[in-house]
Amino acid sequence: MNSVSDRWSPAPRDPLDDTLRLECGVYGVFDVPEAAAITALGLHALQHRGQEACGIATFDGQRFHTERHMGHVGDAFTGADLVQRLPGTAAIGHTRYSTSGGSFIRNVQPMFADLAAGGVAIAHNGNLTNALTLREQLVEEGAIFQSTSDSEVILHLIARSRKGKIIDRFIDALSRIEGGYALVALTNKKLIGVRDPLGIRPLVLGEFQGRYVLASETCALDIIGATFVRDVEHGEMVVIDQDGLKSLRPFPAQRARPCIFEYVYFARPDSVVNGRSVYEVRKRMGRRLAQETPADVDVVVPVPDSGVPAALGFAQEAGLPYELGIIRNHYVGRTFIEPTQGLRELGVRMKLSPNRSVLAGKRVMLIDDSIVRGTNSVRVVRMVREAGAAEVHLRSASPPLMYPDFYGIDMPDRDKLLAANKSLEEIREFIGVETMGFLSVEGLYWAMNSAPRDPVNPQFTDHYFTGDYPTRLLDREIAEGRNEQAERQLSFLVGA
Amino acid sequence: MNSVSDRWSPAPRDPLDDTLRLECGVYGVFDVPEAAAITALGLHALQHRGQEACGIATFDGQRFHTERHMGHVGDAFTGADLVQRLPGTAAIGHTRYSTSGGSFIRNVQPMFADLAAGGVAIAHNGNLTNALTLREQLVEEGAIFQSTSDSEVILHLIARSRKGKIIDRFIDALSRIEGGYALVALTNKKLIGVRDPLGIRPLVLGEFQGRYVLASETCALDIIGATFVRDVEHGEMVVIDQDGLKSLRPFPAQRARPCIFEYVYFARPDSVVNGRSVYEVRKRMGRRLAQETPADVDVVVPVPDSGVPAALGFAQEAGLPYELGIIRNHYVGRTFIEPTQGLRELGVRMKLSPNRSVLAGKRVMLIDDSIVRGTNSVRVVRMVREAGAAEVHLRSASPPLMYPDFYGIDMPDRDKLLAANKSLEEIREFIGVETMGFLSVEGLYWAMNSAPRDPVNPQFTDHYFTGDYPTRLLDREIAEGRNEQAERQLSFLVGA
Amino acid sequence: MNSVSDRWSPAPRDPLDDTLRLECGVYGVFDVPEAAAITALGLHALQHRGQEACGIATFDGQRFHTERHMGHVGDAFTGADLVQRLPGTAAIGHTRYSTSGGSFIRNVQPMFADLAAGGVAIAHNGNLTNALTLREQLVEEGAIFQSTSDSEVILHLIARSRKGKIIDRFIDALSRIEGGYALVALTNKKLIGVRDPLGIRPLVLGEFQGRYVLASETCALDIIGATFVRDVEHGEMVVIDQDGLKSLRPFPAQRARPCIFEYVYFARPDSVVNGRSVYEVRKRMGRRLAQETPADVDVVVPVPDSGVPAALGFAQEAGLPYELGIIRNHYVGRTFIEPTQGLRELGVRMKLSPNRSVLAGKRVMLIDDSIVRGTNSVRVVRMVREAGAAEVHLRSASPPLMYPDFYGIDMPDRDKLLAANKSLEEIREFIGVETMGFLSVEGLYWAMNSAPRDPVNPQFTDHYFTGDYPTRLLDREIAEGRNEQAERQLSFLVGA
Amino acid sequence: MNSVSDRWSPAPRDPLDDTLRLECGVYGVFDVPEAAAITALGLHALQHRGQEACGIATFDGQRFHTERHMGHVGDAFTGADLVQRLPGTAAIGHTRYSTSGGSFIRNVQPMFADLAAGGVAIAHNGNLTNALTLREQLVEEGAIFQSTSDSEVILHLIARSRKGKIIDRFIDALSRIEGGYALVALTNKKLIGVRDPLGIRPLVLGEFQGRYVLASETCALDIIGATFVRDVEHGEMVVIDQDGLKSLRPFPAQRARPCIFEYVYFARPDSVVNGRSVYEVRKRMGRRLAQETPADVDVVVPVPDSGVPAALGFAQEAGLPYELGIIRNHYVGRTFIEPTQGLRELGVRMKLSPNRSVLAGKRVMLIDDSIVRGTNSVRVVRMVREAGAAEVHLRSASPPLMYPDFYGIDMPDRDKLLAANKSLEEIREFIGVETMGFLSVEGLYWAMNSAPRDPVNPQFTDHYFTGDYPTRLLDREIAEGRNEQAERQLSFLVGA
Repeated sequence: MNSVSDRWSPAPRDPLDDTLRLECGVYGVFDVPEAAAITALGLHALQHRGQEACGIATFDGQRFHTERHMGHVGDAFTGADLVQRLPGTAAIGHTRYSTSGGSFIRNVQPMFADLAAGGVAIAHNGNLTNALTLREQLVEEGAIFQSTSDSEVILHLIARSRKGKIIDRFIDALSRIEGGYALVALTNKKLIGVRDPLGIRPLVLGEFQGRYVLASETCALDIIGATFVRDVEHGEMVVIDQDGLKSLRPFPAQRARPCIFEYVYFARPDSVVNGRSVYEVRKRMGRRLAQETPADVDVVVPVPDSGVPAALGFAQEAGLPYELGIIRNHYVGRTFIEPTQGLRELGVRMKLSPNRSVLAGKRVMLIDDSIVRGTNSVRVVRMVREAGAAEVHLRSASPPLMYPDFYGIDMPDRDKLLAANKSLEEIREFIGVETMGFLSVEGLYWAMNSAPRDPVNPQFTDHYFTGDYPTRLLDREIAEGRNEQAERQLSFLVGA
Repeated sequence: MNSVSDRWSPAPRDPLDDTLRLECGVYGVFDVPEAAAITALGLHALQHRGQEACGIATFDGQRFHTERHMGHVGDAFTGADLVQRLPGTAAIGHTRYSTSGGSFIRNVQPMFADLAAGGVAIAHNGNLTNALTLREQLVEEGAIFQSTSDSEVILHLIARSRKGKIIDRFIDALSRIEGGYALVALTNKKLIGVRDPLGIRPLVLGEFQGRYVLASETCALDIIGATFVRDVEHGEMVVIDQDGLKSLRPFPAQRARPCIFEYVYFARPDSVVNGRSVYEVRKRMGRRLAQETPADVDVVVPVPDSGVPAALGFAQEAGLPYELGIIRNHYVGRTFIEPTQGLRELGVRMKLSPNRSVLAGKRVMLIDDSIVRGTNSVRVVRMVREAGAAEVHLRSASPPLMYPDFYGIDMPDRDKLLAANKSLEEIREFIGVETMGFLSVEGLYWAMNSAPRDPVNPQFTDHYFTGDYPTRLLDREIAEGRNEQAERQLSFLVGA
Repeated sequence: MNSVSDRWSPAPRDPLDDTLRLECGVYGVFDVPEAAAITALGLHALQHRGQEACGIATFDGQRFHTERHMGHVGDAFTGADLVQRLPGTAAIGHTRYSTSGGSFIRNVQPMFADLAAGGVAIAHNGNLTNALTLREQLVEEGAIFQSTSDSEVILHLIARSRKGKIIDRFIDALSRIEGGYALVALTNKKLIGVRDPLGIRPLVLGEFQGRYVLASETCALDIIGATFVRDVEHGEMVVIDQDGLKSLRPFPAQRARPCIFEYVYFARPDSVVNGRSVYEVRKRMGRRLAQETPADVDVVVPVPDSGVPAALGFAQEAGLPYELGIIRNHYVGRTFIEPTQGLRELGVRMKLSPNRSVLAGKRVMLIDDSIVRGTNSVRVVRMVREAGAAEVHLRSASPPLMYPDFYGIDMPDRDKLLAANKSLEEIREFIGVETMGFLSVEGLYWAMNSAPRDPVNPQFTDHYFTGDYPTRLLDREIAEGRNEQAERQLSFLVGA
Repeated sequence: MNSVSDRWSPAPRDPLDDTLRLECGVYGVFDVPEAAAITALGLHALQHRGQEACGIATFDGQRFHTERHMGHVGDAFTGADLVQRLPGTAAIGHTRYSTSGGSFIRNVQPMFADLAAGGVAIAHNGNLTNALTLREQLVEEGAIFQSTSDSEVILHLIARSRKGKIIDRFIDALSRIEGGYALVALTNKKLIGVRDPLGIRPLVLGEFQGRYVLASETCALDIIGATFVRDVEHGEMVVIDQDGLKSLRPFPAQRARPCIFEYVYFARPDSVVNGRSVYEVRKRMGRRLAQETPADVDVVVPVPDSGVPAALGFAQEAGLPYELGIIRNHYVGRTFIEPTQGLRELGVRMKLSPNRSVLAGKRVMLIDDSIVRGTNSVRVVRMVREAGAAEVHLRSASPPLMYPDFYGIDMPDRDKLLAANKSLEEIREFIGVETMGFLSVEGLYWAMNSAPRDPVNPQFTDHYFTGDYPTRLLDREIAEGRNEQAERQLSFLVGA
């Protein structure tokens, strides 16, 4: 029986969950056979950018087809009939981790609209900083929203544009949105890729069997054997059709300012982002960390998995042995029952396990990529100590995280960010380590092989560490303004 | 694991399927505890009006909640957490059989929109005869449709109305739609019920524990022990809120012209529709049929289940024994494999079985409610004959079905309707019976206890038999006009 | 993903559930193409004999294949690949309502064993009255049981027989079992059907395209267009193979004594059981009831569905109008939430609905097939009265039910059976009717067209009414004996 | 709806799949609250020992409860009602990768039998080398098997033992079985753990909150914070009950000979097996490999994940940089469609991805744990070369794999094992590397910190490399004997 239903209750975020999450990965191909199968592979390589839901839209020359699922790409887009279900030679795809708006299937991208000018499907990674403001205007004008996704805001702007051609409508819509985003769109004639004016979110262009591919990261080119052509540039709109690729510049020229956190945490280490190997940057973070915050230890141990390259760099720079002192269990323990007898550190032990032979009696240097709320660090340190470590030292391969993000990263509020609320010594004490250290912002720029940070017009989006946001934050400003007077509330639908 | 996905491939309609289907049943309650549970019960009683999908929307004082499912109410809206999933004291619900537009969850009602004036959920039974025309205009103006449902057309009209109050916007929208419909809507303050200007589709008002209930049929009042108050009148809009019920008349006054087919086939026999007991009307059809088309037979046998009351009336009038000569298997055989050895009449035998002890050696009068394509009659007659009947006679308790419907009944095209293409004698021969008879249109009006049919302004919607449509058919006229010049096509999304 | 698991939590029996249930239906075909598809159709026609689970076993010339499912045949045995999943030209099948032992998939039949002599699959309808005693002996000898099904007892007896040939082992096993049963079995060479020495449970032999079919009822022959050959006789074992059919008589000769309750309630009205039309017998029950317990009423109304033929017989005999005063909703409302506001009679209203136009102001004679605990009658009568009936009278088309069954019918304990604990007047008062009446045992025999009941050696198994059990009840005697000393308990596995 | 069914079609093994698999992990706890929850956690830590299915059996003082599922522990044993579904303070559990006998739920352990002496549940890791022979004898005697699992053979031996007490029956059964196994069993009074006479398969004893725990590996103690007590010894039977632990020696004394492959591949690196840290042994393999087969390279790169410790050891010994040149995608791509355009190396790219920044222009030393068929190595090497490596060298951290296993490891036949069919130079050429090297058997013993291999009575089970099997192989000998005369075949049930 078909037992599809239009409701989904998301598992609440584990209170022990001390991670950052990225909203999305995007993908697009044009003029290749079995575009849906190619796109499914690309999305699989982008799974780390969003594990909650995924979707694909194709165009078969006459009709658009979409499928959107909760869950992983490898569970959703399989089956011998995939290319029958999603026929066509052009496709876009999306992986998603939900942020605001809830985990309903209605919110899963790509979004589709059937405009007078023809159909258009759209998917994006990132966040608009004026989405709520635009949405209120659009609703006021009679637009009906079916989701809380920013992509639907863009669709409505396109639908209501007074311009004629779809590309002109698109540009018209882009002129009204603010924020950081990389988006892909599919019309009945074209595949479109756009990167925000500062290039905050990444997007690359590849070549596969003589045709163009768009992807959030190069690892999604490698999986299908496509070759990297170049980054889509900041503020660039590429339009791909039967005649090839056209590059448009719909925004006023600005200096690029890509997100530095892609290097710290989000991107896969084998990806090359904005011309830099993520793996190499991370190793250099570790090297610089060893220079800035040395310690007298016996062994360097990464907190798996994202701390691995920095730990290698630290160990190489410091001339210390690098050892797998903590083993990660890659099988996911979804919603295990915590027995009432109160097992200590169960949350962390489900994923990480101490390798006693490496830790017992040793002075251990732990390397993590970043410290968010610090609760995870507390548990990992306690586990390492219980496994017999003589001393435990901790280093964060990124500077102290102190300011929230508004460009597509799911981050706790400022009052939950450990480094925003405690001094270095308080942090050391809270986590319970012999010494604690963070990479400096200067060190981070060094690791990027960049010139020193330009305080007037920084080379990277780095407000997480500096508070220096690259754009205005319109929705936030309005919300703060209204807060003094009245609640701003859209009557909201739960479910579907 | 939550494995919800946004795609559904409907089982194709069985080519042996020789039935009519009604689009929908609607329900609404206001100011009662556990409104979702009450609504689920009401929808269960309306299951015969649509078995493909169902939905409920509630308002809990702050938020709207909806769930929409493929399948039966008794499978979808169960579980101890129903009233947690759908909290609130006001609710509307819907059962659906799909007609145009495909069987996607996006098309399941209630539809919801978050307007500047507040949220509104809407569900309807029936069909707009100018929906496509309105839709094209709305898309031209920038509206984005997520479904192919008429309800969404109404929502967009409400959203774009220049009026201020939601009720005024609603009336504004109603002024633009044409066709036959009964609709229920829920705002954050009110429950609304509307019946089209001619009252084609039914809607009744009940009272449950001092509060109002809206339902397509009275059987959905009985199930919760509610009492029948009155029919919502043709062209009436009832607005129910904390202050009670207000009756509005948003349309120019017209004489009522309710659908006569509700009595022939769709409504449950225990329902009272427009003041008439469906069971009694059906028995009178049988009585009149016995007068109009008598035959020298031994036994009267209904084709289960909808032929039963007419067969009882026929037998009583003719003084003949009424017997269950055909037994219906109420267990559904969804998609059995038909063995390749080619079993005869398997399609009909899955549902109906001959009761040889009643049939063998007898002259059998079969009574069916109506004849659509006739293929089912052919199979039933053959089955009865193979069970040993000496003679087989067939009567249709309704007049010959000759014209398609545009007000919410799923009916084959005119070229598939048996009576539209063959003479009575040809029909008799095609079906293979000794004698064949249909109730006359006059007889049908007599069975309704009505005055004779007024040819200028008929008392009932009866175009199925007469070709006399109660409204203009705008979409159809435009489609026929364009057919000569060009294809009219919305670029259409398959899937979601 | 394949998410099969070996656990099933049955929905607890609804406390409002006031029905009798039969354990099973069986089916078997030999030497026909696509035997699994044929068997699935046969089981669909036997669905009324067991709705909880179903299974099919086939043999393809080399291997046995089985599938066993919870749920209905029409949901379980579908799909274009059915005959690939269950290949072969010989098959047996089973539908099941669980009795003792719980609703685990382990208990679903057919059961299979891989003996030294070859594989054998077996399925039965009925109950062994010495199963527990045999089971204890077998476990003592080292047998391991995987289920609590009687079929597995028979398999172990076959496995442990000292005889050589499988048929001899089978006969050896039959010589040790007691009770009422009809069983079908499949070996790598033969299809076997057996009926207990008294023929308590039914089994018929049909002919389909020149090959033999076995089925619990003739309605399962009709569905595939097979013709009825004869009943398998009491105490007969039929062995069907490539050489045709052999009839064996493994038991000492006895007079037949088939279950009379098949006619009262279980068999489908279109079936012919032991040479008698079930429909005709039921009508005669109604006729006799009208003679034995007349009343001055206006209308005769059946309690749907099993009361229908008796009500027809009653009305015809009494010259009263037969009307559908109660409408049955055939859509199943599985586990609806009962709202806390305490809707009256909701349990019965989910399935039955009053047809006011027939009931209001009338003196109503309700005809039911039998009265078990009486709780359902109380609710139906109250519903009819609330619909406006002037008087309500009730008749049971069977004699008072006073003694439990041990041959495959799921019946409440004696202290729950209404007629076992109250006088006729107390029953009348309890149910709340103007007059109450039961068919007499003599009347029941008359309805069967039988000679008067022979008190020494009755023609039918009728202990439900008389307490006269056709066999000894060994398990029960032992259990009662032990009760005084110690608990008899097998350590029992819950789950699988 | 409960839609459980008793059939499961396993995904066929991917022909590109070039891995070894272990049958099982086992777990047991006694006298702890919520034993099922504790066991689920333990099984989660043993997930690497079997990902196809899992099961838990508990005893609650009166009844046994079991659940068995296809799929991962983290999907199967979750939900707030776990300890209600599986109540009790004693439990055993099992994770399974299927070997012979098919992937049916019937084969999932623990197996349960309800013996005259009481219930017993059993689960094992390993393989009996005379299981088929015993099975044939048992079937000849009338035993009915429901599975093809060795555990059921043991259950039947226990059931048929002439001994009185369950422990004596157990010992009786153990005296008849041959092979390598670790088993756990649960009776209504005791938790039992047994390791085969040579201790081929591992089993450890832990202490949790003052109570005993049994587990295949120490990592399953760590997850619940239990402490390691000691290994269960070879040929030891531990019996745990309310009075504590008793150690029995049911077998003639022999020298231990544990499986060396647990260190090479199967055990988790953080486990301590037979007193040795798996991680340390693996690092020593890498160190010795660097000594035995040095090469002039720039960088040492592990084939993830099992090659990591050996690569670290190799790099440290050789003084070369260790780098993550290959990134593993931990999201599982179950059954992706391979597009018809024939993507090169898609199979390997789904899981592994080249890190170009490390590989390009470098002389790369790849370290893998072992080489089975070599097909995976071919693909990995080609991928590394395409990423720009100047040279590619490959080392296997274990000696050449040349002989199949019969003690619970799923390994291709000898004619599929690369090293059994090619010389070192042929292997080098087949895989396509500049140099190829294997660890020597002597080196492996050195890595184990063992005395040199005793050729008469080796310290470890190492026939994979030497052909020196630790026990006779009765089933295989009989099969080979019969092969000359006739086929040995049990009539086999497919499905259930």
